Amino acid sequence: MKRILTGDRTTGKLHLGHYVGSLQNRVKLQDEYDTFIILADIQALTTHFEQPGLINEGIYDVAIDNLSVGLDPSKVTIFLQSKISAIAELTVFYSMMVSVNSLRHNPTIKTEAKQYGYDDLSYGFLGYPVSQTADITFCNADLVPVGEDQIPHIELGRKIVRRFNDLYGNGRIIINEPEALISDMPRLIGLDGNSKMGKSLGNAIYLSDNAEDVNKKVKSAVTDKNRISVKDKGNPDICTVSKYHKAFNREDYGNICEMCSAANIGCVACKNILSKKINLILEPFREKRAYYEKNTKEVRDIILDGSRKANIIGNKTVENIKNAMNIDI
Amino acid sequence: MKRILTGDRTTGKLHLGHYVGSLQNRVKLQDEYDTFIILADIQALTTHFEQPGLINEGIYDVAIDNLSVGLDPSKVTIFLQSKISAIAELTVFYSMMVSVNSLRHNPTIKTEAKQYGYDDLSYGFLGYPVSQTADITFCNADLVPVGEDQIPHIELGRKIVRRFNDLYGNGRIIINEPEALISDMPRLIGLDGNSKMGKSLGNAIYLSDNAEDVNKKVKSAVTDKNRISVKDKGNPDICTVSKYHKAFNREDYGNICEMCSAANIGCVACKNILSKKINLILEPFREKRAYYEKNTKEVRDIILDGSRKANIIGNKTVENIKNAMNIDI
Repeated sequence: MKRILTGDRTTGKLHLGHYVGSLQNRVKLQDEYDTFIILADIQALTTHFEQPGLINEGIYDVAIDNLSVGLDPSKVTIFLQSKISAIAELTVFYSMMVSVNSLRHNPTIKTEAKQYGYDDLSYGFLGYPVSQTADITFCNADLVPVGEDQIPHIELGRKIVRRFNDLYGNGRIIINEPEALISDMPRLIGLDGNSKMGKSLGNAIYLSDNAEDVNKKVKSAVTDKNRISVKDKGNPDICTVSKYHKAFNREDYGNICEMCSAANIGCVACKNILSKKINLILEPFREKRAYYEKNTKEVRDIILDGSRKANIIGNKTVENIKNAMNIDI
Repeated sequence: MKRILTGDRTTGKLHLGHYVGSLQNRVKLQDEYDTFIILADIQALTTHFEQPGLINEGIYDVAIDNLSVGLDPSKVTIFLQSKISAIAELTVFYSMMVSVNSLRHNPTIKTEAKQYGYDDLSYGFLGYPVSQTADITFCNADLVPVGEDQIPHIELGRKIVRRFNDLYGNGRIIINEPEALISDMPRLIGLDGNSKMGKSLGNAIYLSDNAEDVNKKVKSAVTDKNRISVKDKGNPDICTVSKYHKAFNREDYGNICEMCSAANIGCVACKNILSKKINLILEPFREKRAYYEKNTKEVRDIILDGSRKANIIGNKTVENIKNAMNIDI
């Protein structure tokens, strides 16, 4: 079984955007791959170090979100990034093999720095792709499921690994060169029509929302603004709700669009169908969530067990790397 | 007893410049302070990652240099930086609290980058003051003996610590704010008159040089070039040998200078006196060196014991820091 490394920053509860873009796929992958799921609290610090309380809460939120959608702790390894000292150690080693300029010109870093409104980057933020390479390689992951925007990071990681192997491998492969497993999952737009669903944008439906919340939020979703009365024909191409039907009600999507375009269904009815569909998906998750929320000690044990396992692998990797670098005594 | 943190990059054998500027003082301090001596192999990597063999050799070279000049392993803690995962972990935490610009504008970084001929800094090199702050604070050192040129790094470290305590301390001090113990030891010039004695400059007398090497090297030292014959009056102000007399033959320094200025002593005789004096200082070191070079297993045990002790302290520090940051579970 090939190993994959995936995970989430622990900055808060996950939403349907995460589900569509990543978690849904992750659940499928767990049967085909040895799946490592990182609760990335250190990476969360790169942007949220001034809100440590939020990161701590995020650890449990994200773990429970993953478990609730069907990731099976007997199959996958869920671990806490800050517990794996090998990741910090590899980050330091890899730091020597990346130039400051290549990080500064990394398009994703640039875009994200803009998003966060940084003009004076922290050293840690600038280096998070280096740390990510450590996340991936400490456990010798073969594949990393990513969206298009993360490809530059994987490429940088592959460059670091190649440089390391060239320098210290003496013809051998010391570190596995990871590959991107590019997901064709679409990015889910926000309830307000914004191109991204995001916590900070206040336009998200959370996996932890109850049925009533979902109904209320779907009701607030932005539709075709030119459609004033039920009798007007709608344009699904510019309607948020139609995008959600495509994501969560695929088998009925064509039909819904046709009815909307022909003014055969109103927005209220259309939204009701969507809400029901979303709640149908979330209902089994809510059951699992209720269980884990009652048994947080079990969640803690899952994370501690996973971290223990990850540490054994990570310490072995550090040992191998130090041997190759000839810096052990 | 207050704790000090000091040490050396493991890039090769230490020379008289190190002795005058640091080791001599270190030997005195070991009785007044709980002394931690870092064998900085990770920092050595920031400039020498392409020569890992050299760094490995350097670990033993530097350890034996320290032991030979009289650092007593029953008093001091000698440890290997790469063995202390807490240092890597703290480096990662501190990375969030320093801006890239403040590192780029650090005068010492700028000067050193120029020295190494870097125009494209590696991420690790740019961040070595962050890593140095981790070196100092993982063991809660109170004082760091440094030369003037290292003061900006200590200041940066103090800033990081203050920021950390402000953010996470909730009124308490989590990390000790280290202070510079500024040494007034002069920088020893090179045999060629270059302002710095250095391995890469080929102008150094090593602590491990034998008596004959010392004689030969002192003979090659650059003197007052205007003094062509013994009968010419010399100018000690522009003579390398006089600087060495000042450092190693202080009680006779005034006298030597007077004789030189009055043409009462020739360069050959003056150099002979100096050689004898240096060899007199090095002789007891050579005895200790011979012992440790025969018993490298003992050196290894000293480093492993020190590293074990340092790890216990470092892991405790990481635990405290994580508690304060509230990122443990």
